Amino acid sequence: MKINVVKNILDANDQMAAENKFFFEKRHIVAVNIMASPGAGKTSLILRTIEGLGEPIAVIEGDIASTFDAEKVGEKQVPVVQINTGGACHLDASMIKTSLKKLSIDKARYLFIENVGNLVCPAEFVLGEKVRVLVASVPEGDDKPFKYPGMFSTVQAVVLNKMDVLPYIDFNVARFMEGVRAVNQEAPVFQVSCRTKEGLQDWIDWLKKIKS
Amino acid sequence: MKINVVKNILDANDQMAAENKFFFEKRHIVAVNIMASPGAGKTSLILRTIEGLGEPIAVIEGDIASTFDAEKVGEKQVPVVQINTGGACHLDASMIKTSLKKLSIDKARYLFIENVGNLVCPAEFVLGEKVRVLVASVPEGDDKPFKYPGMFSTVQAVVLNKMDVLPYIDFNVARFMEGVRAVNQEAPVFQVSCRTKEGLQDWIDWLKKIKS
Repeated sequence: MKINVVKNILDANDQMAAENKFFFEKRHIVAVNIMASPGAGKTSLILRTIEGLGEPIAVIEGDIASTFDAEKVGEKQVPVVQINTGGACHLDASMIKTSLKKLSIDKARYLFIENVGNLVCPAEFVLGEKVRVLVASVPEGDDKPFKYPGMFSTVQAVVLNKMDVLPYIDFNVARFMEGVRAVNQEAPVFQVSCRTKEGLQDWIDWLKKIKS
Repeated sequence: MKINVVKNILDANDQMAAENKFFFEKRHIVAVNIMASPGAGKTSLILRTIEGLGEPIAVIEGDIASTFDAEKVGEKQVPVVQINTGGACHLDASMIKTSLKKLSIDKARYLFIENVGNLVCPAEFVLGEKVRVLVASVPEGDDKPFKYPGMFSTVQAVVLNKMDVLPYIDFNVARFMEGVRAVNQEAPVFQVSCRTKEGLQDWIDWLKKIKS
C-alpha cells in the first residue's frame, strides 16, 4: 500500500516532467538540474557559470526557506525565481511548472535549476531537465560515492568543488574517482574551485556542447 | 489524501519510537540521535566521543549503503550495528527497533545513533532518542541555519565541526550563531575540530550531564 502511494506520486511527477521537457525543447532551452549536499557550492557554480558561459541564462533556485541564493543570482542581472519548498526535501516537476510562470525565460538558452541541498531525495524526482549534474565537494569526503550511489549513478556530470582546500582536508582524489566509476562509468568529473576559479573552463566547454 | 498518508506513517513511527524510548529508559541508556549533512563529521564525532567520554558506549550506524562507518567504530572495540536503508533518506523507529536485536547494548550507558546524511528528512522522524544533536561544519557555510530551519530548530545541541579549516573558508561564526538563535534559543553550540580535537571537552561535559 505504501509502495503504491509512492509509485503514484512518482508517476504523476514523471507525467508533469515530460510536459516541462516539451516546454524546454520547444524553446531550445537546455535545462540543467543541479543537485548536491547542503553547502557543496551549487550557487557558487551557477554564479561562475553565468560569468563564463557567455549565453543567455535563467535560474530557478530551490530552497526549503530563505531567498539568499536568488538574491545573489539576481545581482548578475539574469532572470531568477526562488522556490521555497516550505519543508519538502526536493524539487518536483509541479514546482518547476508553477515557477516557470514567474520566470522570464524566452530569451534563455540555458536554465539552471538549483535543487534543495540533499544527496538522497532529489535523485528520485525528474523535473524535465536535459541533464543532471552533481556538485560534490572536497570537505564532504572521498567516500560519498560509495554512500550515496543512487545520486552518483543518476547524473551526466560530476563537479568536484573546493579543490582549493585539498591541502587542508583528508581527501583522496583517486578513491573518490574509484567510487564514482563504481556506479557511473560515463559522467565526466570536473575538478574545480569556484572560489579560485580553477578548472572551470572544462565544465563550461562541456555545457556548450549540449544540444537543446 | 497524500497528507493523510504521511500523517499515518508519522503516527506509526511515533508509536514505535515511544517503545524504543521505554526500552532505553528501562536500561538507563542515554540515546543520542546524531544528524548532519553528508560529510559533516558525524562518524568522526562519535569516534572522538568514544575516546573521551569514559563510559560504555554502543553505536548504530545508518547509511543508505556501505559499512565503512561501522568498521571504523568497530575498531574502537565498542558494540556497533550497521543499518543500510537501501535508498531511504532517514532512519525510522522501526529500523532502530530491529537493529537493537543485533546489538549488545545491556552494558552501555550511551547509545549513539548516526542518522543518514541529510539536513531535511531525519528531522521528521523521532527514533526514541533522549537528545537530538546536529553536526554542522564550517565548509557547509554560515547560511545553513537560515536554509534548514526545521533541522536546526529540533535539536538540543549543535556541534560546529571542522573549525580547523576556518582560515581557508568564507564562514562568519557570528552569522552562523545568529541563524541558529533565530530558530533555536536553547541549544548550546560547541565549536570543535574532530581532526585536531580542539573544543571537544565542552561537548563531552555536556553529554555527561544528561540523565538517562
